[in-house]
Amino acid sequence: MNSDVKMMIQQSFASQSLMHTLGAEISSLKNGSVDIIAPILESSRQQHGFAHAGLTFSIGDSAAGYAALSTLPAGHEVLTTEMKINLLAPGKGERLIARGKVIKPGRRLIIVQSDVYAIENDIETHVALMTGTMMPLSPK
Amino acid sequence: MNSDVKMMIQQSFASQSLMHTLGAEISSLKNGSVDIIAPILESSRQQHGFAHAGLTFSIGDSAAGYAALSTLPAGHEVLTTEMKINLLAPGKGERLIARGKVIKPGRRLIIVQSDVYAIENDIETHVALMTGTMMPLSPK
Amino acid sequence: MNSDVKMMIQQSFASQSLMHTLGAEISSLKNGSVDIIAPILESSRQQHGFAHAGLTFSIGDSAAGYAALSTLPAGHEVLTTEMKINLLAPGKGERLIARGKVIKPGRRLIIVQSDVYAIENDIETHVALMTGTMMPLSPK
Amino acid sequence: MNSDVKMMIQQSFASQSLMHTLGAEISSLKNGSVDIIAPILESSRQQHGFAHAGLTFSIGDSAAGYAALSTLPAGHEVLTTEMKINLLAPGKGERLIARGKVIKPGRRLIIVQSDVYAIENDIETHVALMTGTMMPLSPK
Repeated sequence: MNSDVKMMIQQSFASQSLMHTLGAEISSLKNGSVDIIAPILESSRQQHGFAHAGLTFSIGDSAAGYAALSTLPAGHEVLTTEMKINLLAPGKGERLIARGKVIKPGRRLIIVQSDVYAIENDIETHVALMTGTMMPLSPK
Repeated sequence: MNSDVKMMIQQSFASQSLMHTLGAEISSLKNGSVDIIAPILESSRQQHGFAHAGLTFSIGDSAAGYAALSTLPAGHEVLTTEMKINLLAPGKGERLIARGKVIKPGRRLIIVQSDVYAIENDIETHVALMTGTMMPLSPK
Repeated sequence: MNSDVKMMIQQSFASQSLMHTLGAEISSLKNGSVDIIAPILESSRQQHGFAHAGLTFSIGDSAAGYAALSTLPAGHEVLTTEMKINLLAPGKGERLIARGKVIKPGRRLIIVQSDVYAIENDIETHVALMTGTMMPLSPK
Repeated sequence: MNSDVKMMIQQSFASQSLMHTLGAEISSLKNGSVDIIAPILESSRQQHGFAHAGLTFSIGDSAAGYAALSTLPAGHEVLTTEMKINLLAPGKGERLIARGKVIKPGRRLIIVQSDVYAIENDIETHVALMTGTMMPLSPK
């Protein structure tokens, strides 16, 4: 990937305060696929102590969005226009990893998918399947 | 609504640490409809300073889930099995309010909807339309 | 609604052969909302003799698409980019009616909703809730 | 796969009159994955002569449903409770093939995915990504 695009993604991610609040980090950044990892913090849980679906959604959406952005020239941005999440299992463990990828690139719309896994004692469990649409915005 | 159910919802909400992290509160609690309000905290934002879609999703999902729970006898729980969000406008303003309601009650599945609004200078803007499915869990 | 737009919608609908195969007709056409009605033909059923979800989806998608088109100047077209359907009850009765409406108009994307009802002995049952995204295409 | 389950799926499919109307056939039947193929008939089109999204949805939904059913003991049935379709490209060509598979089996809910391809001169184009939820029904 172009190093300008890489830097743009890292700067954008760093300026998302919710990602910081959730302890999320980009763990892989390739053309068309981005991974985001987050601990299941004491402050990110639902009523049974598992990862809140809001945490799962947040990192899955961001991973998919940056996967889309990684396919565009530097200076672009993307907006999520819609995202569906199917929850497959409780988010139980030490951390979550969201693997976002581009299903179909495009100038007007980019179709994306994210798969989110909970990691407990180094074993991954598939906890969410997400599909969505990103809209590219050209530089002004 | 039954006061046991009301208490059960308030206790469940209080034990969701992510809701506390996001500053969210239940602002209305009726049979089949629940509202959740949250400030757009400095720590809940995306890269342009607006509400992160993860915040929008989190309170919309919780409002819909508690709306579903409000239709069940005390002792039940609900799980989100799927949720789709269409984002309509940027989450710009001081706070968000999610209005969750039950579209179709059921013993096996409950179909729900949440509409999320951004509030800026007392003016509400519709920022998200969410539809999803909740699965009731009987008391053990 | 502009009579050119009205005619454009009726011509477009008439040229969708699947609508003809399913016996579907436009039963109401207003700015931002379009209804489509279809009999539950012997040839449109699932294995229990109820309306096939494919029939429900087809008229719900078309009603939503034409609701979107009704908000655009003559000469435009729309494409469905995504649509989610929640099925609420079996499609039991003589016919289905899909009521499509625009939730959020736009130049780049139009967010739409369709509610589909089964009609049996003049009683309507809500059988599907659909939300989706339409992409306007300018005249060439 | 158990031959009783195979026969049950073929009988169920044969009794879906819409599948017959659309010219659809099961082209592959394995444990957890089912393919359905359909010609793009003159009677299954949208206004530009391509496959109608209703055709794409119908075979994608059925392929996913039978993939779910293939994982259950004989005598069960499944109901689609929700399905989302992202449309990736026009359905242009001679026929469509829907490849349904189970993402997560379960007693209460089965999460499924279908990918639909248009085939033109033996070349496949990915036209739709579908994810959904099937609800198993036990024999009465």
